[in-house]
Amino acid sequence: MPCEKQGKGMAQTNGGESRRSDCPIACALDIVGDKWTLLVVRDLALGKRHFESFLDSPERIATNVLSDRLRRLENLGFVSKNVDQSDKRKSLYLLTPRGQELRTLMRYLARWGLKNIPETELLDGAR
Amino acid sequence: MPCEKQGKGMAQTNGGESRRSDCPIACALDIVGDKWTLLVVRDLALGKRHFESFLDSPERIATNVLSDRLRRLENLGFVSKNVDQSDKRKSLYLLTPRGQELRTLMRYLARWGLKNIPETELLDGAR
Repeated sequence: MPCEKQGKGMAQTNGGESRRSDCPIACALDIVGDKWTLLVVRDLALGKRHFESFLDSPERIATNVLSDRLRRLENLGFVSKNVDQSDKRKSLYLLTPRGQELRTLMRYLARWGLKNIPETELLDGAR
Repeated sequence: MPCEKQGKGMAQTNGGESRRSDCPIACALDIVGDKWTLLVVRDLALGKRHFESFLDSPERIATNVLSDRLRRLENLGFVSKNVDQSDKRKSLYLLTPRGQELRTLMRYLARWGLKNIPETELLDGAR
């Protein structure tokens, strides 16, 4: 569990990282406070399942960053990684039921961006 | 203007940084996709005005990070910096009308964190 408490007054874990405070904003940023995590969630929500397909998105995520974010989302219980039965050399990434909650956050961010940042538009498939 | 376009098909600026795509999520993350910016916005929303007072928050932001985020928010038009008339050696930081929009985003994040991360609670003054 991200930000699970380990004891009153003690440092808490967030996927192995320390919790900065009990503030929900700080804890949420401990999970998604970077430039890439919610873009990976966006691509999962758009139906991307294979590692290579994420690399095609317009932001051109680097392979090491993508590996790191998928692994982190998996460790936090937001993403599952399974063998693709149609091609067993490949992995299939899916949002878990818990991970579906990240779509809410992603939608909030999209709504805010559309309203406040000029000339933004949702990617095809996200409308 | 963050993410203002400079020309069709050209790289766009976001406070001097390049825009990764027109996706509102990517553009929003270009502004707030780090662990500290929205915590500074939280503190501004809670009424903090002086540099030193941000340092007292439970997350213990480092002075160089705080300087950077305040300068960046000022450059993006979200924060104004003025001389404190009651002590002219000090600066007063305030959210601009444009910066008030960041409170919406901060509230979204707080709502999500409260719902999805165990044992989170709003700081005193934010209830």
